[in-house]
Amino acid sequence: MKQVETYAPPKENGKIMLNANELYCDLDEALRKEVLYELSKLSFHRYPDETSKELIEAYAKVMELDAACILAGNGSDEMLGFLIQYFLGKDKKLYTLQPDFSMYDYYAGMQETQVVKFVTDADGRFDVDAFIEQGREQRVDMILFSNPNNPSGHALSNQELLKIVDAFPCIPVVIDEAYAEFARDSMLKETSNYTNLYVTRTLSKAYGLAGVRLGFLIGNKAMMQTLRPHIVPYNISSVDQKIGAVVLRHASRYQPLIQSICEERDKLYQALANLQTITFYPSQANYLYGRSQRKQAMLKRLQEHGIVIRNYANDDSFRITIGSKEENACIKDLLVAFDKEDTYEIG
Amino acid sequence: MKQVETYAPPKENGKIMLNANELYCDLDEALRKEVLYELSKLSFHRYPDETSKELIEAYAKVMELDAACILAGNGSDEMLGFLIQYFLGKDKKLYTLQPDFSMYDYYAGMQETQVVKFVTDADGRFDVDAFIEQGREQRVDMILFSNPNNPSGHALSNQELLKIVDAFPCIPVVIDEAYAEFARDSMLKETSNYTNLYVTRTLSKAYGLAGVRLGFLIGNKAMMQTLRPHIVPYNISSVDQKIGAVVLRHASRYQPLIQSICEERDKLYQALANLQTITFYPSQANYLYGRSQRKQAMLKRLQEHGIVIRNYANDDSFRITIGSKEENACIKDLLVAFDKEDTYEIG
Repeated sequence: MKQVETYAPPKENGKIMLNANELYCDLDEALRKEVLYELSKLSFHRYPDETSKELIEAYAKVMELDAACILAGNGSDEMLGFLIQYFLGKDKKLYTLQPDFSMYDYYAGMQETQVVKFVTDADGRFDVDAFIEQGREQRVDMILFSNPNNPSGHALSNQELLKIVDAFPCIPVVIDEAYAEFARDSMLKETSNYTNLYVTRTLSKAYGLAGVRLGFLIGNKAMMQTLRPHIVPYNISSVDQKIGAVVLRHASRYQPLIQSICEERDKLYQALANLQTITFYPSQANYLYGRSQRKQAMLKRLQEHGIVIRNYANDDSFRITIGSKEENACIKDLLVAFDKEDTYEIG
Repeated sequence: MKQVETYAPPKENGKIMLNANELYCDLDEALRKEVLYELSKLSFHRYPDETSKELIEAYAKVMELDAACILAGNGSDEMLGFLIQYFLGKDKKLYTLQPDFSMYDYYAGMQETQVVKFVTDADGRFDVDAFIEQGREQRVDMILFSNPNNPSGHALSNQELLKIVDAFPCIPVVIDEAYAEFARDSMLKETSNYTNLYVTRTLSKAYGLAGVRLGFLIGNKAMMQTLRPHIVPYNISSVDQKIGAVVLRHASRYQPLIQSICEERDKLYQALANLQTITFYPSQANYLYGRSQRKQAMLKRLQEHGIVIRNYANDDSFRITIGSKEENACIKDLLVAFDKEDTYEIG
């Protein structure tokens, strides 16, 4: 095995984790201190605030939304599962994209709901009119997909999304915006204009709280009022609520970090755009999606350097999280070298 | 309004909370310190351990169970909801008691599952043979009830419970043991002998972690292996997992506390057993269930003293959590005085 000279970023338990689209850095020391201080005053023996008031109000403030339009969940996963459970069931059809986030299948499966998939292009793009047409033909009961798309990183514009929302006025259209902080646009503000539009968000990605499991559902006020009583009581622990509220108090600190991740993503994409044996696609999220006929060898090479990325077992695709500058430089060097090797070997 | 001379226990936000069967005291200072220390080292930005390994192993050690027989959830509520979702659905029947824990109806409702109820006596007792007979007649698909019963505090013996488990070998029999630490017996150890028996437990009551939302499902190893892949990934935050693991490391500290709550419960029951206008029932949990024709006046009186108990809106019943010695003495004095007043007024 040929060793590539490269940066040697610090590792966690011997690994560089670029597989789960987590933020590459943890709470800074000041914020951790503040979190621990707040937890030192918490009542562990009392049930949590059922309404997650402090958390929701903190999120509303950051996002400039009405708190009455927000529900909070144990990760946005809970909110997605809730919507599928509430609106669908046996003999109903969920309409999503292929590829998209695997949990949609999971929750639909739990409800014995049929999943209809619209297959997107290799880079995640798709024709919105064709999507609408297939949805109508199939008489789907709910639309749900991620935007930016996970895994491709491709994002529809608000204009395209609103075309879909308008085309299906009688069924819920749910946009999973887990990665919207890294994208140009968001449908968050549009939720007040539509009764069939829902957006889910999370603190697991841009806000670096994957371990704390906090997500939100945002929608029209009237619809939220209808849904609120159906959310499982005490769905979020007091501890998690408090951590989210503290971090959101300092949300502005995350803006430069998010900005730098977007820049790193674009830089990495540029550096890898012209490889011969690996194809990458433009992304509006904190990851790059790629394809390669040599994927297995590539994964092996990364593994030898302790780098873990997300592999999709059934085809030639994979996904790499944007990490720290050092981590990104490391993976860039490894992939460029790997690509040249092959060109050399073949040539 | 006649003021009663009594103890004046310390209040939280002006209230004495005896409504939710929480432990009356929070983590002691040493334990809180240890929890905060462990959280100071936690990775907030990484997803939780999907298998909740440390938490489950800690629980297995305390309960002297095989960790492979345990699943952990976001409160035992999640595990109850999961079982109902997994085993039931439309056209299925859940069999429970009346009265029992309200969340069974909630989860069954989410699945459009029919709930069949066996009405118990005023004190929570019921005839096991008649219960079995009605269940057979109704061809129920799952049995689920709390033991000790919430709200009555009445507990069936293991012998009686096993009669039910034996009578329904082909459907899941789920015993919700949220309060079993305060009871004489438990079915925990029986789970290894049956393929249709499940037990749920919680850290919200005896272990004083209501705010942290941690519960467990215990069953036969083979069944747990089948169910494990269906649990929602990342259902428990890293923070909650860690707090549970730390507290369970010190589980033995809770034994004297649990013991004293049982003694206080029995003492309070003895002191209130001979009231003229309020009836209390023997309890094996950390609460007393009662009935009174004068309930509204009684609730008002307690409210005037800042005491919040659980009221059941549709009948003459209510439930009082066993609190601290001072709180119990306070409520005893108030109820004894209230009871005499009426006797005097009438007499």
